[in-house]
Amino acid sequence: MTAPAYDLLLTGAHLCTLAGTGDDPIPDGALGIRDGVIAHVGRTADLPAAPDALARSVLDVSGTLVTPALVDCHTHLVFGGDRAGEFEQRLHGASYEEIARAGGGIVSSVRATRAASEAALFEATLPRALALRDDGVATLEIKSGYGLDTETELRMLRVARRIGGATGQTVRTTFLGAHALPPEFAGRADAYIDEVCERMLPLAAAEGLVDAVDAFCERIGFDAAQTRRVFERARSLGLPVKLHADQLSDSGGAGLVAEFDGLSADHVEYASAAGIATMARRGTVAVLLPGAFLCLRETTLPPIDAFRAAGVAMAVATDANPGTSPLLSLRLAMSLACTLFRLTPDEALRGATVNAARALGLHDRGRLALGQRADIAVWNATQPAQLCYWLGGRMLRQLFIGGAPVTG
Amino acid sequence: MTAPAYDLLLTGAHLCTLAGTGDDPIPDGALGIRDGVIAHVGRTADLPAAPDALARSVLDVSGTLVTPALVDCHTHLVFGGDRAGEFEQRLHGASYEEIARAGGGIVSSVRATRAASEAALFEATLPRALALRDDGVATLEIKSGYGLDTETELRMLRVARRIGGATGQTVRTTFLGAHALPPEFAGRADAYIDEVCERMLPLAAAEGLVDAVDAFCERIGFDAAQTRRVFERARSLGLPVKLHADQLSDSGGAGLVAEFDGLSADHVEYASAAGIATMARRGTVAVLLPGAFLCLRETTLPPIDAFRAAGVAMAVATDANPGTSPLLSLRLAMSLACTLFRLTPDEALRGATVNAARALGLHDRGRLALGQRADIAVWNATQPAQLCYWLGGRMLRQLFIGGAPVTG
Ligand SMILES: [Zn+2]
Ligand SMILES: [Zn+2]
Repeated sequence: MTAPAYDLLLTGAHLCTLAGTGDDPIPDGALGIRDGVIAHVGRTADLPAAPDALARSVLDVSGTLVTPALVDCHTHLVFGGDRAGEFEQRLHGASYEEIARAGGGIVSSVRATRAASEAALFEATLPRALALRDDGVATLEIKSGYGLDTETELRMLRVARRIGGATGQTVRTTFLGAHALPPEFAGRADAYIDEVCERMLPLAAAEGLVDAVDAFCERIGFDAAQTRRVFERARSLGLPVKLHADQLSDSGGAGLVAEFDGLSADHVEYASAAGIATMARRGTVAVLLPGAFLCLRETTLPPIDAFRAAGVAMAVATDANPGTSPLLSLRLAMSLACTLFRLTPDEALRGATVNAARALGLHDRGRLALGQRADIAVWNATQPAQLCYWLGGRMLRQLFIGGAPVTG
Repeated sequence: MTAPAYDLLLTGAHLCTLAGTGDDPIPDGALGIRDGVIAHVGRTADLPAAPDALARSVLDVSGTLVTPALVDCHTHLVFGGDRAGEFEQRLHGASYEEIARAGGGIVSSVRATRAASEAALFEATLPRALALRDDGVATLEIKSGYGLDTETELRMLRVARRIGGATGQTVRTTFLGAHALPPEFAGRADAYIDEVCERMLPLAAAEGLVDAVDAFCERIGFDAAQTRRVFERARSLGLPVKLHADQLSDSGGAGLVAEFDGLSADHVEYASAAGIATMARRGTVAVLLPGAFLCLRETTLPPIDAFRAAGVAMAVATDANPGTSPLLSLRLAMSLACTLFRLTPDEALRGATVNAARALGLHDRGRLALGQRADIAVWNATQPAQLCYWLGGRMLRQLFIGGAPVTG
C-alpha cells in the first residue's frame, strides 16, 4: 500500500488553466493537489487509477468551471469612513470644488483614516476583503495612502498585513505615501516628498510592511520629477515600483514607471505610444481600472489595441477606494472591462489571474499548472465568458486557497 | 397578563420609512410587526414599555439601516440557456447582424426556452431569484416572452408562479407574448398579434397566470397599432398594461400606454414631452433600466428632469434578461441609475421600493407604515446613500418577508 498521490483531487471540471500550454480549456479536467500546490493537471478520463485510489479526498465538480482563483492587483481597501455623503451631494448637483471647500474629497478620507484606530480600520476593512473573497479573490494588493503621515501610513499597512491572516487571502502591501499632498504640506510638495523618501518609506520598509512602492503621478498629484525621486528611493531599498499613471492626462507616467522596470502602470487611459513601447520593452503590466472610469463617467478609453499590438500584458482590478471606485467585486470589474473597454472575456480572465499576479511580482499563482499554488475557484458556470457576462449573481461555488477550502 | 402587542419588534434602527410623513428617516427607530404586517412605527425611545414586554421577539438592529424590502418591477427572469457566447462573439468583433445570421439574438433564447422543460426552466430561474433576494428583493415581476407560442408562454408563467413558492418572494407575472415576432410568423406580424390576442393571452389569463400585459413597441418590435390591439384585448379581460416604450427611438409608446392607464412605461430613454405629460396625468410610472443602457452602451439618457418636473414617479429595475441586461442585483441597478442617469440615492431607493410597488399595482408594500406588509430589509449601512454608493459587497444583513426572516 502506498499513500495516495494527492491530498485532494478535483474531477470532471471544465478546466481553464491559463497555463499557455495550448491544451486549454480542458473539458472533463482533473486537478490534483498536494501540500498546497498543484501536483497534477489533465483529463479525468486519463487518470491512471480510480480517483479514490489517487487522493485522500475527491471532489466531483462536474458541470462547473474551474479557474485559477482571482487576483486583485490594485486596491485601496483600508480607509476610515466612506464618501457616500459626498456621492450623494454630487448627485444633488454639488461640484467637486464645492465638495472640496466643504472638507470633502480625499482629505476627508485622510481625516477619517488618521482618526481611526488600528482596530477600527481592521474592522472596517475585513468585510471588504471578504466581499472580494466571495467573488473568488484569493490574493489582493492593498495600498496605504490615506494617512500621509508616518504613523497612519504604517498603521494602514499593518492592518493590510493582518487582513490576510484573518481571511486566508494573500495580501501584498504597497506603500503609497505619495498619494496626495497632506494639508499640512500645502504648497510644499517637494518637502512632503522629502518626508516620504527620508522618513515614511524607510520606516515602513524597515518594519517589513512594503512589498512595492506606488505614487500618483498626475496634474492633480505629483509631477514626474517628484515621482522619480520616490522611485529612486524605492530602488535604493530594493523595492519594486508601480504607478497611478496617465489616468486623466498624459503625464508621461507609463514610460516613467517602465523605465524603472515597474511592475505595473495603472489606469493608463492617456498612456502615450512612447510610454506603451517602453512598457512592452520592460515587461510592465497595464492595469485597467474600469470602476473608476465608470464612477467618474470618463469617456477616453485606455489604448487597448495599442497594448495588444505592443504585447503589453493587461490586468484588471477593482481599484476599490472610497472616492472614485467603491467597487467590491473583481468579477464586476472584469465585466465592466468587457462592456466599457471591449476586453474579451478571455482577456478579462487573464487580467484578473495570471496577469494580475505578474503585476504583483508573483509567479507562483494565476495559472493552473504543476507547482503553482493551489488557489482555485470553482464556479457555477460552464464557460469563462459567463463570469463576465453576468452582472451580480452567485457565481462562486467554492474557493480553495493554498489547497484548503474556504468556508464562511 | 395581556399578550405581547407584536410578534416581532426591531429596535434601534436608522429607519427609512419612505412613508411620506415628513418624519423620515427616523434615527433610533422601532418597528413593530404583527400578523405579517407593520403594526408600529416610531422611535425606540418613545416605546411605551420595555421592548421585551411588547413583543414575543425583539431584535436590536442598532447601527443598521432599515428600509422597505426592495421590489424589482421589470425582469425577464425565466429563460432557457444564456447568451454568454454571443456576448463573447460581440467582443471579438461580430456585428449584431452576423450574430443574428448565426442564429443568435433573441431567437436563440426562444429556441432554448421552447426546448426546456418546466423543471429545467424552474431550476435555471431559481438561483437568479435567490440572487435578487440576496440583495434585498422581496417582490419581483417576471415576464413571459421567450416562448412566443401558447405552450411555452404558459410554461414560462407557471414557472414564474412557482418561483415565489420556492423563495418566499411575491412574484407578479406579466404576459409578454408581443415581445418579438417568432420565426414561424416572419412577415406576418399582424397574424401573430391575432394569435396573441385571440389565443395566447386569453388562455394564460384563464389559467390565472397573468397579473399584467406588456408588449415591445419599437421599430424592431411591434408598432403602435399592434400594441394598441394587445392593450384593448387586455382591457377587455380586465388586465392592467405596461409597455417597453421608447427605448431606442420615440415610438409614441409612453403616451400610448399612459392613455390606457398603464401601470408603467419602461426604458423611456426617448419618451416625448407629450408622452411624459400623458404619463403624469394618468399616473403611469417611468421604469428606468440602467442595466440595458450600460450593456448596450447607449448614450441618450432618459429625460429624468422632465419626469421630475412633470411629477412622474420613477422606478428602477434590473430588466434581468439574457440579451441586453444579464443583471442579477437590483442594488447594482440603483447604483447605475445614480451614476449613469444621475438619480439621487433617495430617488433610486424610492424607485426600488414604493414606486416599483406602484408600477406593479401593489399598494400594500414599499413603505414602512402601519398596515403595510412587513417586507423589510436590514442593511449593513448607516445611511441610504450607501446602498447606491457601494458596487457589490455584502450589504444585506437580514431580509423579512411578510414578517418572517429569510434564511439561506
Ligand atoms: Zn488607485
Ligand atoms: Zn425588458
